[in-house]
Amino acid sequence: MQETVLVVGGGPAGLSAAASVTAAGYKAALVEKEDVLGGAPILSGYAKLVPSGEWAKDAIGRMVSRVEDDSNVTVHKAAKVTQLDGETGDFTATLTNGEQVKAGAVVLGTGFTHFDSINKPEWGFGTYEDVLTTTQMEQMVAGSKIFCPSDGRIPERVAILLCVGSRDRQIGREWCSKICCTVSANLAMEIKELSPQTDVFIYYMDIRTFGLYEDKYYWKSQEEFKTKFVKARIAEVTTSSDGRRLHVKGEDTLVKRPIVIPFDLVVHAIGMDPNEDNPEISKVFGVGLEKHGFIDRAEQYTNPGGTTRRGIYVAGAATGPESIDDSITQGHTAAARAMADLNALVRQAS
Amino acid sequence: MQETVLVVGGGPAGLSAAASVTAAGYKAALVEKEDVLGGAPILSGYAKLVPSGEWAKDAIGRMVSRVEDDSNVTVHKAAKVTQLDGETGDFTATLTNGEQVKAGAVVLGTGFTHFDSINKPEWGFGTYEDVLTTTQMEQMVAGSKIFCPSDGRIPERVAILLCVGSRDRQIGREWCSKICCTVSANLAMEIKELSPQTDVFIYYMDIRTFGLYEDKYYWKSQEEFKTKFVKARIAEVTTSSDGRRLHVKGEDTLVKRPIVIPFDLVVHAIGMDPNEDNPEISKVFGVGLEKHGFIDRAEQYTNPGGTTRRGIYVAGAATGPESIDDSITQGHTAAARAMADLNALVRQAS
Repeated sequence: MQETVLVVGGGPAGLSAAASVTAAGYKAALVEKEDVLGGAPILSGYAKLVPSGEWAKDAIGRMVSRVEDDSNVTVHKAAKVTQLDGETGDFTATLTNGEQVKAGAVVLGTGFTHFDSINKPEWGFGTYEDVLTTTQMEQMVAGSKIFCPSDGRIPERVAILLCVGSRDRQIGREWCSKICCTVSANLAMEIKELSPQTDVFIYYMDIRTFGLYEDKYYWKSQEEFKTKFVKARIAEVTTSSDGRRLHVKGEDTLVKRPIVIPFDLVVHAIGMDPNEDNPEISKVFGVGLEKHGFIDRAEQYTNPGGTTRRGIYVAGAATGPESIDDSITQGHTAAARAMADLNALVRQAS
Repeated sequence: MQETVLVVGGGPAGLSAAASVTAAGYKAALVEKEDVLGGAPILSGYAKLVPSGEWAKDAIGRMVSRVEDDSNVTVHKAAKVTQLDGETGDFTATLTNGEQVKAGAVVLGTGFTHFDSINKPEWGFGTYEDVLTTTQMEQMVAGSKIFCPSDGRIPERVAILLCVGSRDRQIGREWCSKICCTVSANLAMEIKELSPQTDVFIYYMDIRTFGLYEDKYYWKSQEEFKTKFVKARIAEVTTSSDGRRLHVKGEDTLVKRPIVIPFDLVVHAIGMDPNEDNPEISKVFGVGLEKHGFIDRAEQYTNPGGTTRRGIYVAGAATGPESIDDSITQGHTAAARAMADLNALVRQAS
C-alpha cells in the first residue's frame, strides 16, 4: 500500500490534483514532460485568463509555486512515464530518466494539443505573415503592443476566425473546442484596450459564451468594446492585389450573400485536439480512448474522474476540450477519488 | 475540531460531496429541504440524462442509494439550516426541526430554481394547454407517450423554443443557462423515437452544444432524427383562427423575414434562475451573492469551490447554470477542499 498519488502532467489539472492530495495529508509525485510546470497557459504564454482577468503567469504561477514549495510533492520535470506495473494500491511507474515511482493511485492531467492551423491551409496561416493563431495573439497582448508582423504597422482592422480546427468534419474535428468563443471575445476586448483605433471583427457559426460568460464576454465586447460579430462561413483568406491587406472571403449566413472584407491582421481561434501523445498514454497506462482520441471517461454518477481502468483517474482537457477553471475543478475531483482508494486500502490493512 | 462535513442540498452536487467525504474516511451530515433526495432530476422527473443516456431515476437513484446506505452519512430530510454559528473547524448548524449539527466545514449544493414561464407571457405558457416546459416534456417522455394535453392527439409538429428565461435582458436574465441547447437536442431525439410521425423544430439564437456535445447531440439530432433548427427571434405564440393549432410568430434571422409556423405542441426550454432561497442562504451562511443572485465564487486557482467565507464551499448550479455532470465533479471538489480544512485541524491539534 502506498500513500502517494502519481500525477501525470503539470498543467492546471495536474497542479490542482497534486495540491489537493497533499492538503488532505497524502503525498504526490508529479511527472511533467516539459522542463517547466504550468501547462499550456505557461508554455504558450497566455495573456489574461477567462474569467478571472488575472495574467496567466500570475494565476498559474501561483499554482506552480504552491506545488514547488510543497515538501510533500516530488516533482519530476522533463520526464515521462514509460511503464506502469501493478494495480490499484500498488502501482510502480518507470520514468524516462530511469527513476521509479511507487503510488497507490494515478491521476492523468495530460491535457491536449493545440490544433495546427497548417491543417487548414486555405485560411492563410503559414502563407501570410499577418495570419496568426490565438496563441500567438495572446503572446502579442502579453507584450502590450498590437502590430502586423509583416511591417510593424498598427492594424486598422483585425478579424478573429472562430472554429479553426473545431466543428469541421472535412478535417476530422467533429467536436467544439468549448472555450474559444469566450477566449476570443476576451481577446477582442484586450486588443481594443491596447489599440483603441483597431476595429475587431469575430467571424462565427454560433457564439457559445455559455452560462455567466454571456453578459461578461459576449455582450460586454459588443457594447463596451464595439466588437463586431459576423455570422459567416469562411471560404478562404487571400491578399489584396497590392498584397498589403488580407481578404477574408465567405458567405454571410445572415444575409446569404458572399462577402469579402479587407483586414490587416487575421487571427485563427485554434481548437483543442486530443494530446498527440494519447496513443502512447493509452498504451502505457492501459486506459481507453473515446472515438475522437481523447481519454475515455467512466460512468459519471458514481465514478467521476474515472477512466476505463481502476485506480487511474483523469482531469482536464485530456478528456475533451476544457476550460482552465473546469480543469482545476476536475483536478481536485480526481484527487478526491484517488484519496478514497488510498483510504480504502488503509482501512483494509487495519 | 469536528470530523464531519455539513452538506446542504441533496441533489447531484450534494450527494457527490457527501459520498466523497465518507469515501475518504470522514463523516457527512446531509440536510435537504424536500422529503426526498435527488434534487431537480428526481423532483422534476427528468427522462434520460445528458450525456449518459441513462434514466434519471436510475442514475441519480444510484447516487441517492449510495448515500442513504452509507452509515457515515446522517441524512436530515425536510429540513433547512436556520442558523450557523462558529467558524472553520467548529461550526454548529441549527435546523428547522430543532436539531443541531456540528461540522468542521460546510458544502452548499443548494442548486437553482427553474425559470417560471409565466414570466414570459407572450410565449403562451399558462394561456394555452399545449404550451409546456421542458420539465413537463421530460415527464411526458418518461411516461413514453407524446400527446397534446388539450385533446390527447399525437402532435404532427412540435416546436422547442430555446432561451426561455435566458439571454433575455427584458426580463432580467442576462445569463445563458448553458445546458438547455444540449438537453433540447436530446429531447427532440427522444420525441422522435417515441413518435416517429412527429416533426420537431428547435428555435434558437445560437446552438451551444459545446465540447463533445457537438456531434453527439447537434449533428446527430439533425442527421439521424431530422430535427429542424430555425434561427429566429420569437415575438409571440398565439392560436390559429379555429383555435386548434399554435402559431409561433417571429423573425427568421437567417433570411430576415417574418415567419409564422403552425404547431401542435410548443415547448419552452426553461432556464436556470438563482435558487429563490439564495437571499436567505446568503444570510444564514454568511456567503456573498454575485450580481445575478447566484452564490459568489472565490478565486478559482488556489481556492476552487470556495465562497466568500472561509470553511464554506459551494458546488453545482448554486453558482450559476450548470450541467449535472459538472455539478457532480464540483461536489467532489468541494468535498476535497472541506477535507483539506479538516486535515489541517487534525495536524494542528497533534
